[in-house]
Amino acid sequence: MSEAPWPREELVARIRRIGEERYHSLHPFHRLLHGGQLKHGQVQAWVLNRFYYQARIPLKDAALLSRMEDPALRRSWRKRIEEHDGGPGNEGGIERWLVLAEAVGLDRNRVLRHEGVLPGVRFAVDAYVQFVRERSLIEAMASSLTELFAPAIHEERIAGLLRHYDFANERTLAYFKRRLTEAPEDVSFTLDWVLEHATTRERQEAVLGAVTFKTDVLWAQLDALHHAYVEPAIPPPGAFRLEHRS
Amino acid sequence: MSEAPWPREELVARIRRIGEERYHSLHPFHRLLHGGQLKHGQVQAWVLNRFYYQARIPLKDAALLSRMEDPALRRSWRKRIEEHDGGPGNEGGIERWLVLAEAVGLDRNRVLRHEGVLPGVRFAVDAYVQFVRERSLIEAMASSLTELFAPAIHEERIAGLLRHYDFANERTLAYFKRRLTEAPEDVSFTLDWVLEHATTRERQEAVLGAVTFKTDVLWAQLDALHHAYVEPAIPPPGAFRLEHRS
Repeated sequence: MSEAPWPREELVARIRRIGEERYHSLHPFHRLLHGGQLKHGQVQAWVLNRFYYQARIPLKDAALLSRMEDPALRRSWRKRIEEHDGGPGNEGGIERWLVLAEAVGLDRNRVLRHEGVLPGVRFAVDAYVQFVRERSLIEAMASSLTELFAPAIHEERIAGLLRHYDFANERTLAYFKRRLTEAPEDVSFTLDWVLEHATTRERQEAVLGAVTFKTDVLWAQLDALHHAYVEPAIPPPGAFRLEHRS
Repeated sequence: MSEAPWPREELVARIRRIGEERYHSLHPFHRLLHGGQLKHGQVQAWVLNRFYYQARIPLKDAALLSRMEDPALRRSWRKRIEEHDGGPGNEGGIERWLVLAEAVGLDRNRVLRHEGVLPGVRFAVDAYVQFVRERSLIEAMASSLTELFAPAIHEERIAGLLRHYDFANERTLAYFKRRLTEAPEDVSFTLDWVLEHATTRERQEAVLGAVTFKTDVLWAQLDALHHAYVEPAIPPPGAFRLEHRS
C-alpha cells in the first residue's frame, strides 16, 4: 500500500523546503535582533533564554547516544557533546555562550541557574529532549537537520550584531563563529546517515516530520520571547523583567 | 538542617497565594474572552487549542493512575478519567468540548486531529503530562491543585460568554457548567491527600513548585494564543489561521 520512496535528491529538496518555509531565521524577533532594533534588555532576555536551549543540547545528544547500539555511530555523535561541553584546547559552546551572557551584563550564576527563563522556552526545549528520547532513532537524528540552515543565520547574526551592538566583538561572538565550522561537519554526517536509512516512504515522511517538529521548537522559543519582551511585551509571572534604564 | 514543616493552614495559604499571583484568570487573553472582545476566529482558535489540553488530561490522569500502588487511591482518582471520557449517563468532558467546538463553527474531525494547534500549546501541555510521569507522586497529584482556582474562572466565563457571544447557551457551555461541580469534588480529595502527605518542609516546597509549574503550563498556552491571534497576531508556520470574514 505504501508509496515508493522518493529519490535522495527529492528528499533533500523537501528537507530544504521546510527550512525555507519554517526556519526561525524568518521570525520577526530575529529580524529585530540582527537589524539592531532590540534594546539592551531585550538582547539580555534573548541571551538568557537561549542559554536554556544551549544547556539542554548536550543532554539531548547524550540521550541520543544512549540509544545508539553501534559504537561507530556513537563515536561520530560524541563529538557534538564535546563541542558544547568542551575538552582539551576547547572551552566549549556552553562556556562561549556564558562569555556572551556576561558581555551583555547578565550574572553568570543567574544564567547558569536559568533564573527567569520563560516557561514557553522551557516547554519547547524540553519537548525537543523528550522527542529525542522517545521517537525512532532516525527521527531523533533527523531532528538535528535544522543545522543545514544554521550557517546562513549565524553569518547574518555575526554581521548584524557586530554592526549594531557595543557588546559584540570577536570574543563575545565566538560561539557563533565556531558554529560556522562545527555545524556543517555535524550535519553532513547526519544527512548522509539519514538518507542512507530512510529507505521507505514512511521513514522519509518521519524524517520530514522530525525536521518540521524541530522548526516548531525553535520558532516557539522566539514566539515566547517576542510575546514577553517585544509585543505586547507582557512577561509571564516569574519571568525575567527588563530593566528600565535610560 | 531542613526547616520544620509549615502548619497545614500556612501551606494552604501559600498554595492559594500562587493562584492569586499566577493563575491564568489574570491573563489578558481571558479578560478579552470573557469581556466579549474577541472576534469569532479568535474564539475558534481558543476552542481548537484548548481542546489539545482537554484531550491530554485523561492521558495525564492515566499516567498518574499507573503510578498509584494503593487501590483505594486509584479508585478515587479514576473518577477524573470518567469525567473526561464519559460513561453511562455521562457524555464526558471531551464530548462536551466538541459540542462547543461545533457551536463555534469548527469541524469536529479537524478538532479531533488537533490540526493547526499551536506548537507552544502542545509543548506546554506535553510538559504537564511529562511532569506527571516523572515527578514524585505528591508533586504529580499537587499539580492538579490549580482546580482550587477553577470555579471562579468558570463562573466568570459562563457569565461572560452568555452575555457576549451568540454561540453561547446552556448546551454549548455544558462543559464549564459541569466542571463547577466536578472540580471542587476532585480538588477537595486531592488537597486532603496532599496535606496529609506533605509532612516535611521539603515536600511542602515540592508541592508549591508543582502548583507553580502548573500555573506556568496554563499561562503559556494563553501566551501562545495571544501572540498568534491577538497581538502581534503572527501565527507560527502551520498553525490555524483566522478566516477574515465580515
